[in-house]
Amino acid sequence: MGQQAEKALVLLSGGQDSTTCLYWAMDKFGADAVSAVSFDYGQRHRIELECAEEIAAAAGVALVSLPIDTFAAIGGDALTDSGINVESDLDEASGLPNTFVPGRNLIFLTFAAAYAYQRGIGHLVTGVAQTDYSGYPDCRKATIEAVQSAIQLGMDTDLQIHTPLMHRSKKQTVELARDLGALEPMALTHTCYNGVRPPCGECPACILRARGFAEAGVDDPLIDI
Amino acid sequence: MGQQAEKALVLLSGGQDSTTCLYWAMDKFGADAVSAVSFDYGQRHRIELECAEEIAAAAGVALVSLPIDTFAAIGGDALTDSGINVESDLDEASGLPNTFVPGRNLIFLTFAAAYAYQRGIGHLVTGVAQTDYSGYPDCRKATIEAVQSAIQLGMDTDLQIHTPLMHRSKKQTVELARDLGALEPMALTHTCYNGVRPPCGECPACILRARGFAEAGVDDPLIDI
Repeated sequence: MGQQAEKALVLLSGGQDSTTCLYWAMDKFGADAVSAVSFDYGQRHRIELECAEEIAAAAGVALVSLPIDTFAAIGGDALTDSGINVESDLDEASGLPNTFVPGRNLIFLTFAAAYAYQRGIGHLVTGVAQTDYSGYPDCRKATIEAVQSAIQLGMDTDLQIHTPLMHRSKKQTVELARDLGALEPMALTHTCYNGVRPPCGECPACILRARGFAEAGVDDPLIDI
Repeated sequence: MGQQAEKALVLLSGGQDSTTCLYWAMDKFGADAVSAVSFDYGQRHRIELECAEEIAAAAGVALVSLPIDTFAAIGGDALTDSGINVESDLDEASGLPNTFVPGRNLIFLTFAAAYAYQRGIGHLVTGVAQTDYSGYPDCRKATIEAVQSAIQLGMDTDLQIHTPLMHRSKKQTVELARDLGALEPMALTHTCYNGVRPPCGECPACILRARGFAEAGVDDPLIDI
C-alpha cells in the first residue's frame, strides 16, 4: 500500500495511450494506490466512456466519470458541436483540425486536480504525447508544465502531473504496454475516429495505431475481437 | 469601434468587483468591443446570476451564461455541495475557508478563453484581487500569470488576461468605480454572503464592502434600495 501522498489519479479516456498510462501508474504507485477519472463532455464517440469503464474494471481500479456540459455550450468545434461536421483538412486560419476543443486538456487536468485535491491525491497521470501531437498545442510538454504551475499556485498544492508518454512514439508506447503486461487490455481500448468496434482500419487514428503495433512487432489484440 | 483583436470579454459574477471591471473594460476597449460571461456552476447564491444579467443590461453589453456542472459532481466544498454547511472558521488542514472551490478561477478563465478563442476575442478581464484575497490562492497575481501562460501555450494564442483590481484595496476599487462613472450600477450588484437583497449588513462580505465605501467617502447605492 502506498502512503496517502503517493496516491495517483489517471485520466482515462478509453484509448490506447491512457490505458498504457493506467498500467504505468499501477506499476509505479502500486495498484491499490491508483484510481481513474473519465470525462463525459459531450464527445462525439461516447463509446470511449464505455471503454474506460471496461478497462478500469479489468484493471481492478475505481473509475469516476465527471460531467462537463460547458464545451457543448461554448460550441464551435466538431467534437462536441453536433452542428459541425469533422473535416479532414486543417483549418486555414488556425492550422488546427476542426476537432480541436480549445482548452480541453487544461480543463481536464484542472478538474482532475480539483477532484484529487478533495481526496488527498498527490499525482495526476495523463497520456498526452508531444511526439504525435497531431497539431494539438495542449499536448505539448510546455503546456502541461504551465498547467501544473497554475494548479500548484491556484490550489496551494504540490500536486505533480506525470506524462509518461510525452516523448514516446506510438511504437515505443506499444513496447511500454508490452513491458508492463498491458497488452491484453488493449483489446478493450478505443482509437477509431469513426467510432466503430472493431475499428474501421482506414481512418488516420486506426492507421497510426496499426503502424505503432507493426513497428513494435506486436499483434494488436483489438483486431482479433 | 475597436479592431477585432481589441475585443474584450469580462468575467461578470454580479459582484462589485467584476462590475467595476466591466466599466473599466468599456472605458479601455470601447463599449461596443466588450461583452461579458457569467458561470452557472451550482453556486449557493443564484441571485448572482440575476444580478449579472441586470448589470449587463444596464451597461448595454451582451452577456452569455455558461453552465458548469462539474464542481457539484466533484463535491467537497460548501459553495456547490448542498450537503456541506458554510463554516465561519478556516479549515485546519488547508488554512482555507470551506467555501474554497479548488480551481474555480482556473476553470472560469480557461472556459472564458475557450469561448473567446472561438469568437476572435483577444482580451479577458477579471476582478480578482490579491489585496483582499481572503485566503483564496487562485486570486493571486502569480496564479493568474500561470493560467495565462497555460492558455497561451495550450490554445496557441496571445490572449491577454487583465486584472485591473489586482493590487487595489476595496477603497481604491470604489474610487475607480466612481471615476469611471460606475457607481449607479453598484445598486444592482450582489455581495452579501447570506444571499439577500437588501444586504444583511452583518456578514464579512457586507462589512468589507461597507468599509470600502466609507473609506472612499462614497455612499453605497445598494443600501438605498
